[in-house]
Formats: sequence, structure tokens, C-alpha cells
Amino acid sequence: GPVAAVVRELRCLCLTTTPGIHPKMVSDLQVMAAGPQCSKVEVVATLKNGREVCLDPEAPLIKKIVQKLLDSGKNN
Amino acid sequence: GPVAAVVRELRCLCLTTTPGIHPKMVSDLQVMAAGPQCSKVEVVATLKNGREVCLDPEAPLIKKIVQKLLDSGKNN
Repeated sequence: GPVAAVVRELRCLCLTTTPGIHPKMVSDLQVMAAGPQCSKVEVVATLKNGREVCLDPEAPLIKKIVQKLLDSGKNN
Repeated sequence: GPVAAVVRELRCLCLTTTPGIHPKMVSDLQVMAAGPQCSKVEVVATLKNGREVCLDPEAPLIKKIVQKLLDSGKNN
């Protein structure tokens, strides 16, 4: 397993979502299922500039970002 | 943006990966691009029992887990 915990807040994190995020700007994506801590699914992207933004879980972009991130290790 | 930071460790998190994780067991998935903090892409899943496991970034399962998580809010 991971050597350190990934912290999950016990409440909703996203009040608004940010459109127009390009996959190449994203360094980290976290997808959190709806559950007792928040009744909606939440998607938080960390950008390469360090900023964090919430994304619309229904945006087709999400899958492109996941693919881009998974591909990021391919040439190392 | 998110109302709280998603903490990212400044080093590799995953020493080993866990096979055989079913999408329905996962409540949270974090995909981290390869970068200065770690030269490989890392995928950490939080399971519904609270356990965290690292997944193989090349496993086709990853995309199924993302889809399952994104769908989790659909009926709320």
C-alpha cells in the first residue's frame, strides 16, 4: 500500500467547478465517490502551478485527464 | 475551487501495487502524474473499508474505477 495516507476531508470539498482546464495543465486528479461525507461525486484537479480546482464530474474532459496522467509515466 | 487542500506528498507513495481490487470496493481514486516528486505515475485507491492501496497505472481496471466513481452521484 501507499507509504503515506491520502487525506480525505469528511465533508464536501467543491462549492463550484472550473471549466476550461486543459489536461496538460493537470498534475494530479482525485475522484471521490458520493457517500456519507458528501452526497455528490467530487473531482479535484491539482494544476502544475499548484492551484487546485474542482471539475464537473460529468465533463468528458475527466477521462482525457485520467488518460493523460496515466500516460505521463510511459516514457520514463 | 476546493474548500480544503488535497495533500500531496513530495515523494513516491507507492512501493507495491495491489491486484484484484473490484471497482465497487473503491470510494476514492487519486491519479498522480510522474513529476519531480516521483518519476512514475502513481494511482492510490481508498477502499470503502478505509484501507488505501496502490494500483498498477497500466491496469485497464483504472478506467472502470473512474467511471464507477463518476457514476456514483448520478442517482442522488
